Amino acid sequence: MTTVLSSRAAIHTETVEYKQGDTMLEGYLAYDDSISGKRPGILVVHQWLGLTDYEKHRAEQLAALGYVAFCADIYGKGVRPKDVNEAGALAGKYKSDRALLRARVNAGLDMLKKNEFVDTSRVAAIGYCFGGTTVIELARSGAELNGVVSFHGGLDSPTPADGKNIKCKVLALAGADDPFQKPDDLTAFESEMRDNKVDWQIVFYGGAVHAFTQPDPGFSNPGAKYNEKADKRSWQAMKDFFAEIFN
Amino acid sequence: MTTVLSSRAAIHTETVEYKQGDTMLEGYLAYDDSISGKRPGILVVHQWLGLTDYEKHRAEQLAALGYVAFCADIYGKGVRPKDVNEAGALAGKYKSDRALLRARVNAGLDMLKKNEFVDTSRVAAIGYCFGGTTVIELARSGAELNGVVSFHGGLDSPTPADGKNIKCKVLALAGADDPFQKPDDLTAFESEMRDNKVDWQIVFYGGAVHAFTQPDPGFSNPGAKYNEKADKRSWQAMKDFFAEIFN
Repeated sequence: MTTVLSSRAAIHTETVEYKQGDTMLEGYLAYDDSISGKRPGILVVHQWLGLTDYEKHRAEQLAALGYVAFCADIYGKGVRPKDVNEAGALAGKYKSDRALLRARVNAGLDMLKKNEFVDTSRVAAIGYCFGGTTVIELARSGAELNGVVSFHGGLDSPTPADGKNIKCKVLALAGADDPFQKPDDLTAFESEMRDNKVDWQIVFYGGAVHAFTQPDPGFSNPGAKYNEKADKRSWQAMKDFFAEIFN
Repeated sequence: MTTVLSSRAAIHTETVEYKQGDTMLEGYLAYDDSISGKRPGILVVHQWLGLTDYEKHRAEQLAALGYVAFCADIYGKGVRPKDVNEAGALAGKYKSDRALLRARVNAGLDMLKKNEFVDTSRVAAIGYCFGGTTVIELARSGAELNGVVSFHGGLDSPTPADGKNIKCKVLALAGADDPFQKPDDLTAFESEMRDNKVDWQIVFYGGAVHAFTQPDPGFSNPGAKYNEKADKRSWQAMKDFFAEIFN
């Protein structure tokens, strides 16, 4: 499908089936087909509700910026939580099995890199909430990419020593008032980055809670709420980060 | 004096005498005189060594971006510390007398606003180290401006209740490994911002210590050291902040 977002950009989008081991996954690709030649690729990792229109829209925004964007599917084709109970169970399953989580997100990264328009020397990953945890885990897996951006992601790790594997730059964008971000996890994350001499940054947006980039986080909780200012600021921070790492 | 920084920009600079009460102060003005009409104004507040070439250069950089920049003089005309002992004593004096510090920085802000090229509805202040503390204090004084940016400034306050006076947006840019930034001060600052519903943000740059924007911090200490990446990133963060607040 080609969606015309503006007079300039014609965004091609398509659903893409791919596999991790024997598991079928269903991702989503977006790029501007009015551009020719190779360009940086961005992996987009979904929040706990799985790959939804939210992530697809982000991929289209990235495509309009000139990137090839690919939304990974961590849960599997057809595995789309109906409610937050199912979402919590699924996200919990992968957070408890980091080896599987790493395999799934790396399968998405491989798919992105295989795209004919992707300059494989210029690749990054972004993720939201559960996906924000996942992209840090991707970095911890030792994956070859330039950088990862975590939007309101949990930063905890059961194996902080794996910080030694990180080869890419890390940018974490966090709500200063996110009640789901445990102070101990934050301290542990900072120590992990510091101890392993990672090139890392973290931004805290005052007044922002969890899920601050999501107009509809899919559940009602005062601790998870859209914040337009933090949304715009974090998107700008991501763009600056890309400008730096793809320079 | 007019310095040609590029084929495009002709930066006019001048030393400006002004007063706070009976005390003579000596600031430094910079603007691009190839631009006509009013434009946003930026106050620049010096580090503990007083107004040096470092701040003047920052003012020239801001002028080249199209702003009117004015370096405040907090210490007074001719009061320029010869070494870090004198610098420490002077900075300590003003940090211990926040009323005087506020009066001095507001005198600089007034001078900036009086400049014929400044659009007084679009004004911000930036500061480095001691100046990074001072611009937050300017905000706490209830000054009318759009925003303040603190580069590796101490964020402590003897009167956190004064956070209620803050009318402008606050951006703090900090070294994640700055040994001069006491964790308790950081926690208190965050509480002050939060309790008073200030529009605030803080960025921590991994691997950066104190004075990360200063190629020559004027003293040798492993806890105060230039960091090119953090310098560039923080300057970009400031530019984004200005783009937002002057929109």
